[in-house]
Amino acid sequence: MRDESIFDHDELNEECGVFAVVGRPDAAQLTYYGLHALQHRGQESAGIVVTDQTRFHVQRGTGLVTEVFQTDSIHHLVGNTAIGHVRYSTTGGTGIQNAQPLVFNFAKGELALASNGNLVNAKELRIELEQQGSIFQTTTDTEVIAHLIARSQAPRLEDAVKEALSHIKGAYALLILTNDQLIAVEDPHALRPFSLGQIGDAYVFSSETCAFDVIGAELIRDIEPGEMIIVDKEGLRTSRIASPAPRAVCAFEYVYFARPDSDIAGINVHASRKRMGQQLAEESPIEADVVTGVPDSSTSAAIGFAEASGIPYELGLIKNRYVGRTFIQPSQALREQGVKMKLSAVRGVVRGKRVVMVDDSIVRGTTSRRIIRLLREAGATEVHVRISSPPVINPCFYGIDTPDRDQLIAANQTLEEMRQEIGADTLAFISPQGMIESIGRKTNEHNGGHCLACFTGEYPIAIEEELESVST
Amino acid sequence: MRDESIFDHDELNEECGVFAVVGRPDAAQLTYYGLHALQHRGQESAGIVVTDQTRFHVQRGTGLVTEVFQTDSIHHLVGNTAIGHVRYSTTGGTGIQNAQPLVFNFAKGELALASNGNLVNAKELRIELEQQGSIFQTTTDTEVIAHLIARSQAPRLEDAVKEALSHIKGAYALLILTNDQLIAVEDPHALRPFSLGQIGDAYVFSSETCAFDVIGAELIRDIEPGEMIIVDKEGLRTSRIASPAPRAVCAFEYVYFARPDSDIAGINVHASRKRMGQQLAEESPIEADVVTGVPDSSTSAAIGFAEASGIPYELGLIKNRYVGRTFIQPSQALREQGVKMKLSAVRGVVRGKRVVMVDDSIVRGTTSRRIIRLLREAGATEVHVRISSPPVINPCFYGIDTPDRDQLIAANQTLEEMRQEIGADTLAFISPQGMIESIGRKTNEHNGGHCLACFTGEYPIAIEEELESVST
Amino acid sequence: MRDESIFDHDELNEECGVFAVVGRPDAAQLTYYGLHALQHRGQESAGIVVTDQTRFHVQRGTGLVTEVFQTDSIHHLVGNTAIGHVRYSTTGGTGIQNAQPLVFNFAKGELALASNGNLVNAKELRIELEQQGSIFQTTTDTEVIAHLIARSQAPRLEDAVKEALSHIKGAYALLILTNDQLIAVEDPHALRPFSLGQIGDAYVFSSETCAFDVIGAELIRDIEPGEMIIVDKEGLRTSRIASPAPRAVCAFEYVYFARPDSDIAGINVHASRKRMGQQLAEESPIEADVVTGVPDSSTSAAIGFAEASGIPYELGLIKNRYVGRTFIQPSQALREQGVKMKLSAVRGVVRGKRVVMVDDSIVRGTTSRRIIRLLREAGATEVHVRISSPPVINPCFYGIDTPDRDQLIAANQTLEEMRQEIGADTLAFISPQGMIESIGRKTNEHNGGHCLACFTGEYPIAIEEELESVST
Amino acid sequence: MRDESIFDHDELNEECGVFAVVGRPDAAQLTYYGLHALQHRGQESAGIVVTDQTRFHVQRGTGLVTEVFQTDSIHHLVGNTAIGHVRYSTTGGTGIQNAQPLVFNFAKGELALASNGNLVNAKELRIELEQQGSIFQTTTDTEVIAHLIARSQAPRLEDAVKEALSHIKGAYALLILTNDQLIAVEDPHALRPFSLGQIGDAYVFSSETCAFDVIGAELIRDIEPGEMIIVDKEGLRTSRIASPAPRAVCAFEYVYFARPDSDIAGINVHASRKRMGQQLAEESPIEADVVTGVPDSSTSAAIGFAEASGIPYELGLIKNRYVGRTFIQPSQALREQGVKMKLSAVRGVVRGKRVVMVDDSIVRGTTSRRIIRLLREAGATEVHVRISSPPVINPCFYGIDTPDRDQLIAANQTLEEMRQEIGADTLAFISPQGMIESIGRKTNEHNGGHCLACFTGEYPIAIEEELESVST
Repeated sequence: MRDESIFDHDELNEECGVFAVVGRPDAAQLTYYGLHALQHRGQESAGIVVTDQTRFHVQRGTGLVTEVFQTDSIHHLVGNTAIGHVRYSTTGGTGIQNAQPLVFNFAKGELALASNGNLVNAKELRIELEQQGSIFQTTTDTEVIAHLIARSQAPRLEDAVKEALSHIKGAYALLILTNDQLIAVEDPHALRPFSLGQIGDAYVFSSETCAFDVIGAELIRDIEPGEMIIVDKEGLRTSRIASPAPRAVCAFEYVYFARPDSDIAGINVHASRKRMGQQLAEESPIEADVVTGVPDSSTSAAIGFAEASGIPYELGLIKNRYVGRTFIQPSQALREQGVKMKLSAVRGVVRGKRVVMVDDSIVRGTTSRRIIRLLREAGATEVHVRISSPPVINPCFYGIDTPDRDQLIAANQTLEEMRQEIGADTLAFISPQGMIESIGRKTNEHNGGHCLACFTGEYPIAIEEELESVST
Repeated sequence: MRDESIFDHDELNEECGVFAVVGRPDAAQLTYYGLHALQHRGQESAGIVVTDQTRFHVQRGTGLVTEVFQTDSIHHLVGNTAIGHVRYSTTGGTGIQNAQPLVFNFAKGELALASNGNLVNAKELRIELEQQGSIFQTTTDTEVIAHLIARSQAPRLEDAVKEALSHIKGAYALLILTNDQLIAVEDPHALRPFSLGQIGDAYVFSSETCAFDVIGAELIRDIEPGEMIIVDKEGLRTSRIASPAPRAVCAFEYVYFARPDSDIAGINVHASRKRMGQQLAEESPIEADVVTGVPDSSTSAAIGFAEASGIPYELGLIKNRYVGRTFIQPSQALREQGVKMKLSAVRGVVRGKRVVMVDDSIVRGTTSRRIIRLLREAGATEVHVRISSPPVINPCFYGIDTPDRDQLIAANQTLEEMRQEIGADTLAFISPQGMIESIGRKTNEHNGGHCLACFTGEYPIAIEEELESVST
Repeated sequence: MRDESIFDHDELNEECGVFAVVGRPDAAQLTYYGLHALQHRGQESAGIVVTDQTRFHVQRGTGLVTEVFQTDSIHHLVGNTAIGHVRYSTTGGTGIQNAQPLVFNFAKGELALASNGNLVNAKELRIELEQQGSIFQTTTDTEVIAHLIARSQAPRLEDAVKEALSHIKGAYALLILTNDQLIAVEDPHALRPFSLGQIGDAYVFSSETCAFDVIGAELIRDIEPGEMIIVDKEGLRTSRIASPAPRAVCAFEYVYFARPDSDIAGINVHASRKRMGQQLAEESPIEADVVTGVPDSSTSAAIGFAEASGIPYELGLIKNRYVGRTFIQPSQALREQGVKMKLSAVRGVVRGKRVVMVDDSIVRGTTSRRIIRLLREAGATEVHVRISSPPVINPCFYGIDTPDRDQLIAANQTLEEMRQEIGADTLAFISPQGMIESIGRKTNEHNGGHCLACFTGEYPIAIEEELESVST
Repeated sequence: MRDESIFDHDELNEECGVFAVVGRPDAAQLTYYGLHALQHRGQESAGIVVTDQTRFHVQRGTGLVTEVFQTDSIHHLVGNTAIGHVRYSTTGGTGIQNAQPLVFNFAKGELALASNGNLVNAKELRIELEQQGSIFQTTTDTEVIAHLIARSQAPRLEDAVKEALSHIKGAYALLILTNDQLIAVEDPHALRPFSLGQIGDAYVFSSETCAFDVIGAELIRDIEPGEMIIVDKEGLRTSRIASPAPRAVCAFEYVYFARPDSDIAGINVHASRKRMGQQLAEESPIEADVVTGVPDSSTSAAIGFAEASGIPYELGLIKNRYVGRTFIQPSQALREQGVKMKLSAVRGVVRGKRVVMVDDSIVRGTTSRRIIRLLREAGATEVHVRISSPPVINPCFYGIDTPDRDQLIAANQTLEEMRQEIGADTLAFISPQGMIESIGRKTNEHNGGHCLACFTGEYPIAIEEELESVST
């Protein structure tokens, strides 16, 4: 599960969550619980659009799902098909106007869109559309898709969507709602997780399977790369927006985005993280007294490391659960005097001990340095850092907002330089091959069916072609 | 750390947290961070009173610390001595008027009080005071103390406090503030944890030591049973409100109230919980595939159980971090259809497995039954329940709001009946002696210096006398 | 009706409004509408306490009646007897803790008090009570009354109230509620208006009769000086807290406090104001083109002046209705550039005209100077100021917070100096005798039954005695 | 000034207010005060967009100007050119998404629009645009204008605006902002008031001149019918969007929309209303004891009536100033028992009197009936109703949302039937000719330069042509 104490807010791009229910009178309520289970994918804003077959009912707002919706308001969201969205954004000032689902009127009536992902060529398309007279009210990629759909002359919505997406390159899990149809589309490489489930006779869609568990729905299957699913009064049918390509799930979903209780492409996230920890212990063993993880995203890997190494697993770091938007940040003066915010090292656990600190990634290195200092101040005699993902050395084109290359510590320093920079006694990363094997898909798909580009620079073949075509 | 998914809101009494800073210009800010670290002890309301030596500045409100205080408001709380309080209450409707610190004017000027605890004879004292013409604005025990102080004719405040507390029987960590003094008092048996620390030249007081770590303060020592500490312009001095009695810390503080990173009476809470898990594994071993704890309070014990038993520790249960006051509870219909709220079982971890579920206590048994069902629905083939505290069979007179005896499952059923009631394959509790040894105070004090009355019915001797005197 | 543009917020003391309903299932709702009609008497906070015969239901908050109560909340206020209060306070920082009705527990059960008025000897009583061990949570005079009631050993509440009020000197309209009685008391000189009415079989009490009209109740009569009315299950009976004294209604109630549609002591407020304007025109005639009043409190007097003088009445000054608590005050720089806030002069009405500006009072003179400048900037060639009350030269001991004598312009300057100071072409005040006759009570009571002390220094005889006794 | 007690909320269409400042560092603050002075033109939402020459800063919200903007927020609106809007809407549910100024990105950069008015052919244009692929996010007419501007291929913005407006028929005062230009356009018949002023070197634009007075600006002139004013770094220049046509100001602006201190087309609104009252007294004299106006919009006419008839003017009806959005409406049961909401009749003024009640208009007649009943219940012996506008018998195409013809009482009943329906003793309306003369423009323009279509059915010639072309 994403941990804001590790990757700071400004380091991560628009990683969002989408959810939909088709064909239940309590569609909006179920969507509420679904979004609540996806809350870790975005805390900036939340929204639900529901159709009663005649018109839309919309509620969107900034804040957590529990802040945006109240008992009263949820009961105004009447209708049996709903789509919802939780949003995580890069820039603080975006606010309510970018809250999804976006809602428009176009020639075929009302249209709502919710998307998790990033378009590689959004900027070019936007300029082109503006030159043709389009006006934009948001800065989201999703509005570009809406314009393309509206401009298509195809009489059927699904053909208009197909035509629109043919112009688009990127990673997305996309939901489109009208008063008589719901359309769900997975990008051609399935970079973003997207699953189809069912609850009774109704269909549900979700960025992660954990949301199915929460509402008592059953997973049917993951949506295929390039697949478009249409649900309307005729029932559910499936189509394609692109020719079949191998699945290339973003490896970072396993490393820290997804909730441990979700399954992606059939693999449980907690289990894959624990295997990464075990692998790490085998690749880079160390003599120590205790193993601790950086909560919450590294807990599973730390448990795995402890198990494989035989070193006891302890709660050496505690996270304050109550840090929210309105938390008053300590002044610089107070910080220097030692006022902590989110993480505390547990003195009684680490004092006089050699500590293995397992974390899921290092981006800039600043957070690692801070946590290591916490541990030493609490009395740790040695701090050995083990990272359950390989060094991040390449930018991501598909929605993970890695900072500029010159700020990626692993792209600019040797392992030894990094160790000194963060102040660890030893430092080791898992190997790319070790990670692939730990995630556990032993298929003959490229990289086991995962995108590891940020670690290896090896983009899945199809993606490379796209990038070339974009840059042309 | 208290877990609301285990003990439901209505099962627990007024367990609060107090914090104070004496002698720093940023007293209110430090108190804010201190209260934030004590947030797990009370989420209903929060308050800070600060004195600038001439007058009080007060802010109190319902909600979390981060909701009650904003950047603007904290800067209005000027002065170099502050006391703060977080409150947990039994009844939903109490609201703002019971938010502490309470503030009064009396003959000696302004008076603020903040208390964590429960008075055994509050009701009797209240009736007596009303018959003498006192009027009450709150339903807190703390207001009784204030009236007793105000009615004392002793010229010095500390003598008035001593006189007031001589009428009182109960458990409390009490802070009293005037414009020129701060007084801290620990009850005669030290049932509630209460520590003295320092940061630079300033003194700090806290219900738990974790709050010292957060602000960079050092623990000096725990306050002694019956000790009264006075800080004023003369410095710090200590006095007594009662003759020396053995320490009898509430064992439940170790079991689940306190934060794992706190030390109480010199013992780290996480470490003591882990030892309880180890002890439990030794006392009641079982063959199984995975060990899981009920988050968050049972995590440490589960780790200990896993370590001692050699069964792998896994995240078999996941708690949604975003459940807050404004969460819309699912209707009965939705619950029956399987909508979960706070806890999810991790299918990928427990499916097809024999699971040891470690929990910290069983009160009514309803929550255990619910969690066991969650695990079975997620595919667990067996569920073995291990409880890291002994059966609760007696009411608490000192602030833990155990429900009426007829609702205490362990007071009314045999172990086998309980096992059937909650639906476990096997069920075992730690022994009282095992718990005492696990907590780890090998002194010759009675019960190792702890109050175990709710488990054993054996009240510390001095307490029994008091109860007799009260009931007379 | 009080006009904040004339007397600024900080110049006026605690003038409040009280309302009660006894014996109707919709008591709280009717109290809401009653308080709403009394909103002009206090905008700082509002509150209602209702009893269902068993316990109190309380709601209080800062802000307007419409801000404090919502549809939901009013329906929680169940019970058939309610008292309510709107509060106007002198100091900004007082906040919620001073919101009335105050609610206490005392030996006889629950007790609520709401009072409009001011006690002359509140401070002395408070000190005395504190020395006897009382603690205070508010800075209101009303809490002093509560303590005195609680300390009385009289077995019947009405005797306890009588005993309590025997210690008190001042002006008040007081409502006291328990779970089985409502008691209403008017001070011995009836300085504050207080009326008894009925709606169906139920009794109502109000600071002003306008609140009766709004709920469709009928006025029975004004409450007599020193009268105590008790309503309980036996019905209504009347008693006395003091021997009969002549009525001495505060003349300022007629001048600007009360709503024009209220009747006080049988005299309509608008009609009395209009007669003051007519009297003023007769006493101090002037040749001019238009008459305008300073909205809203001087409108009636301006109409009277126009009618008596034959000069057309015009809307020469317009008040912005939307200035509220959250209005952003213009910076000094913007003010100097001419940004106005609440009042605008109507250029099309006053340009090139000789204007008579009728206002109800001059306290410091600063507001008059500002308004005269507005009129001149809008093109008025002459501005003749006529004030419908005599010069204020003495402090008030009974609740009107006249500023210190050295800030009362009329106490320090001659009429000519004042004229120059405010920049008027001519300036005249109504004579005290003219005002008495205009109000219109031609009785042989002293001063026609009014208190004119702030104008004349002549305190009603009984009051003088009291003041002596206080100052002794 | 519009009085909601007369025309109920649902009877009036989108009558809004616009304001702009060009060329001052405090542009947003001045716009705040300007919008505050225009608050009577719309209370649903408010917004300001300011440019710092590089980018827009936007704040919009539902509620009053004082609710939408706080001190902090206004200081974030940096830049020296600002446009603002207050909105009044017909449908309750519209909410924030329709709050103006609207903001878009288009090919030429950022674009903001604020408009007061109504387009006759908005619906047709919208359908046409959607068929060409446009998507709409609001239901405002203003968004149609934005799309037309964006689709124009004209390289200069002012030509694009001209081209866009050539498709549009309707009444509007329109403000358009980019990062380097402000454009203001008045519709071809100047149906909506729109004025140009200056403050120092900066230009200001406003729906009404009262906003100029409030910020200390000077009126330069009213904007001409069909005039387009462009202000940019070259200074101010003027252009035309249509060939010259006679001014046809909506007469209802004088009757009740505008503030009495505004001048429209050189005529003061209060003065014109007073003349209407005088004219009415001459046209339909009556013997009576008092004249009263329905507050606030009919006060001026009532004063005029009183002056011309010699009958004293009194405050016979009082409006509660504190009725706001959150006022709890009395239940039907309470209403029947006599609970009033906004208006009270002053018993002391009307009891036993023959009352002339002057009102500004009758639409459905329901409000008049209610007020007459109030007066009779308060003791009026006769109620003579005089209306300062002619009977409304025709729908308005230009933004005044007259209800359907079958609900217009004057379109369906004779004068005598109306009199009986509302319960008056006599009833008279001003004549159309009398109204024209009272407003006072003795030009040879058609109808003195006013649109009287709702009274006479005579639409200004050019308008009729347009309507034909639309209906073709």
